[in-house]
Amino acid sequence: MFGDKLEAVRATVPLVHCITNYVTVHDVANVVIACGGSPIMSDEPADVEDITSICGALDVNIGTLNERTIQAMALASARTQELGHPIVLDPVGAGASRLRTQTAATLLDQRAITCVRANVSEVKALASGAAATRGVDAAPDDAVTYDNLEAMAAYTRDFSRACGAVVAVSGAIDLVSDAEHTYVISNGHRLMAGITGSGCMLSAVTAAYLAANPDDRLGAVAAAFAMFGLAGKLAAERAENEGVGNATFSNYLIDAVGAMDAATLNRGALYELF
Amino acid sequence: MFGDKLEAVRATVPLVHCITNYVTVHDVANVVIACGGSPIMSDEPADVEDITSICGALDVNIGTLNERTIQAMALASARTQELGHPIVLDPVGAGASRLRTQTAATLLDQRAITCVRANVSEVKALASGAAATRGVDAAPDDAVTYDNLEAMAAYTRDFSRACGAVVAVSGAIDLVSDAEHTYVISNGHRLMAGITGSGCMLSAVTAAYLAANPDDRLGAVAAAFAMFGLAGKLAAERAENEGVGNATFSNYLIDAVGAMDAATLNRGALYELF
Amino acid sequence: MFGDKLEAVRATVPLVHCITNYVTVHDVANVVIACGGSPIMSDEPADVEDITSICGALDVNIGTLNERTIQAMALASARTQELGHPIVLDPVGAGASRLRTQTAATLLDQRAITCVRANVSEVKALASGAAATRGVDAAPDDAVTYDNLEAMAAYTRDFSRACGAVVAVSGAIDLVSDAEHTYVISNGHRLMAGITGSGCMLSAVTAAYLAANPDDRLGAVAAAFAMFGLAGKLAAERAENEGVGNATFSNYLIDAVGAMDAATLNRGALYELF
Repeated sequence: MFGDKLEAVRATVPLVHCITNYVTVHDVANVVIACGGSPIMSDEPADVEDITSICGALDVNIGTLNERTIQAMALASARTQELGHPIVLDPVGAGASRLRTQTAATLLDQRAITCVRANVSEVKALASGAAATRGVDAAPDDAVTYDNLEAMAAYTRDFSRACGAVVAVSGAIDLVSDAEHTYVISNGHRLMAGITGSGCMLSAVTAAYLAANPDDRLGAVAAAFAMFGLAGKLAAERAENEGVGNATFSNYLIDAVGAMDAATLNRGALYELF
Repeated sequence: MFGDKLEAVRATVPLVHCITNYVTVHDVANVVIACGGSPIMSDEPADVEDITSICGALDVNIGTLNERTIQAMALASARTQELGHPIVLDPVGAGASRLRTQTAATLLDQRAITCVRANVSEVKALASGAAATRGVDAAPDDAVTYDNLEAMAAYTRDFSRACGAVVAVSGAIDLVSDAEHTYVISNGHRLMAGITGSGCMLSAVTAAYLAANPDDRLGAVAAAFAMFGLAGKLAAERAENEGVGNATFSNYLIDAVGAMDAATLNRGALYELF
Repeated sequence: MFGDKLEAVRATVPLVHCITNYVTVHDVANVVIACGGSPIMSDEPADVEDITSICGALDVNIGTLNERTIQAMALASARTQELGHPIVLDPVGAGASRLRTQTAATLLDQRAITCVRANVSEVKALASGAAATRGVDAAPDDAVTYDNLEAMAAYTRDFSRACGAVVAVSGAIDLVSDAEHTYVISNGHRLMAGITGSGCMLSAVTAAYLAANPDDRLGAVAAAFAMFGLAGKLAAERAENEGVGNATFSNYLIDAVGAMDAATLNRGALYELF
C-alpha cells in the first residue's frame, strides 16, 4: 500500500541532494521537509560529490541549467551511481532548447537515472529525440486522456525499456511505468497546473520516496505521485473555500503534503495498475 | 480600455522569457501565470537564444546580475530584437553600482528595449548617467508627487525620446511615458513598497501585456500598471482585514492578479492621459 | 533592553548586503524589510564592492556557494572590514563538505567576521576543524539542552575567544556568546525547525541589528535572536489555530517579525545573561 511508502519516508528522514532550478527551489526545499525528508542544495562542481555522498537520493532538475551546474549534475550523478542511490531526472524544458534536450539525453544515456519525472511533452522530446515543446508546460495537444490512455501507457513502457528508468509522466492523469507495468493515477487537481513548481516539487518528493523505499521503485514513484496529487486536491478545496489564488494555493499544497498520513493516502489514492 | 488589454493576455497566453534575479523569481513566475501568460526562465548564454525564439517577449532584470547572465542578456536581447518582439528592461539598482548602471545603459544603447520599468531613482541614474541611488529602493527625496508631477512627466517623456523606449516609473504615483504622452496612474497601495519583488513582478507582467498587445505599446504598459496597482489595492484590503504582514500580502497580491477581470479593471483603473 | 535595539533598526533602516543562498533568499529579503531594514542582494565579484560600500552590514551565507560567489564573499568581506561595518557569517553545511568547511574557516581566519550565526553542528565543525554534520540541519545528538548548557556556553565562549566573533548558536535553546558572556535565550518554537530558511533569515536580521546597534554587539545579536524566536512563537500560534503547515507558517513568521514592537519584545523575551 502507498501508505507504507509514506511512513517509510517519515521514519527514515532521507537526505535528498537537489540540483534544481532557482525558480522553485524554495518550495522544493519546504516540500521535501513536509513529506518527511531533509533537503540539501548544492550545485558547485567542487562541492557536489561530498554533499551527495551523505545523501540518500539525488534530484537533478535542469530548469535553469548553466555550464557550471551541468558539470555539477554529471559529477553528482556519477558519484550517486557509484553509491547505488536513486536519481530522479526532471528534464524541464527538454524539447524547448538544444541544450536542455541534450543535457537530459546525456544524463539518461549514462544509465544512472532511476526515474524520469516529466510532463508528456518533455517525455516525447526525450523519447523521440526530436519533438518541440511549448516552453516548460505540456503542449495542449500533448495530453494523456482516457481516449489515448492505452497507447500512452505502452509508449511510456517502451521508453522505460529503452532508457532503463521508471518513466513518470504527470498531468491530469499520471502514468508511472517501468518496462512491464503502468500505474494510472487520477489524483491531482487542475489548480496544480496554475502554479510554478508543482512538477519540480513532485520530482524531489519522488527522490525522497525512492530513497526510503529502495526495494520497490515503481511503487515508490507511484506512491509519491498519488500522495502529491491527493495533497493537491485537499489544498485546492481549502484554496477554493477561501477564495485565494495560485500563490496561496502553492503554499497550501506544501502544507497538505505535511499533513498527509498513511490512512488518508490509502483511502484517497485513485489508481489502477496495468 | 485597459480591460481589452487584459483579455488579450488571457486569450493569447504569451510565453515570457525572463532573465531575472533569483530573489523574486518565484513570484515573477507565479504572477506571469496569474496574469494570463506563461513564464520560462533561462539565463545560460548557450540556452537563451533557443528559448527566446519560442517566446513572445523578453523580461531582462539585472537584480542579481553576473558575468554569465550579462552575456545571456545581450544574446537574448539581440535575438528578441531580430524577432521584433518586445523587451522590458528592469534596471534594478542602476546607480547603486557601476556594473549595474553600465549594464543597463549598454542594453538601452542597443535600442532594443521596448519599455524601461524602474523606480524613479533608477530612471534618474539612467537618464543622467550619474545619479546615486539608495540600494534597490527609490531614494526618499526621489518621489513623484502632485507637486512635481508635471516636471516629472516631462522628464520621463524626454528620457523616452532619448532612449526610444516607453519609460514606466512605478511609485505611489506611476508615470508611463512615450515621447509624446504620459499616463499618470494612481492605483496601488503603500504595502506594495513593503515587499521584495513588486517591481520585478510588474516588469514581467508588462512584458506579457506587451506581447499580447503589440499595436499599442504605451497603452499595454499603462494597462499592466493599472491592473497591478489595482490588484495591490485589493490584496491590501484582504491583508489588512486578516491582520497579516508583508510575506502573506505578497502572495495575496499574486492571487489578486489572478482574480482580476476586465470589468473590475475598467471600473477601478485610476488614470489620466496627458 | 532588547526593545531599544529593535527600535534602532526601525529608526535607521539599515541597508544589508546579502550574499546568500538562492533557496531562501526571497524570505531573507522580506524578513529584512519586515524587521526594519532594507536588503540588497549582489554576488558578482565585479559588483559587490560598490554595493557593500553603500550598506551598513554584510550577511555572508554559504548555503549554495560556488566558485564565483566565494570570490564575491572574499571581496565584499574585505571591503566591509575596511569600512568597519559588521559582517555576519552563516556557515550553512560547514562540516558537510570540505568546500563549505574551508570557505567558512577562511572567512573566519581573516578576522573580519562580527558574528557567526549557525546551528550547533556547524559551530562544532568550525570550532574543531573536523566534525561531520548531517546535511544542513543540526545532528540529533548535537543539541543544546538544560543538561549540557553550562558546558556548551563555555564551549561557545572559548570559540568566540578563538575566532574573535560573537558566536550565536540557534536551536531549541539559543546561545549567544562573546569571549566573556553568554545569553541563553529560550524563545522560539519547534515549527521553526520544520521550514527551510529560519537560520538564513535570522542571520540577515542579525546583520540588520548589528548595523543599527554598533555599540553593543553582543546585545544586538541577542536582541535579534529573542525577537525572531518570539515572532516564531506568535506565528506558530496563528499557524496552529488555522491548521496550516510549514509553507504558510514560513510566511506567518515573516509577518510576525513585521508586527513586532519594542513593548511586545521586552515583555516576551525569555533570556538569562551569564
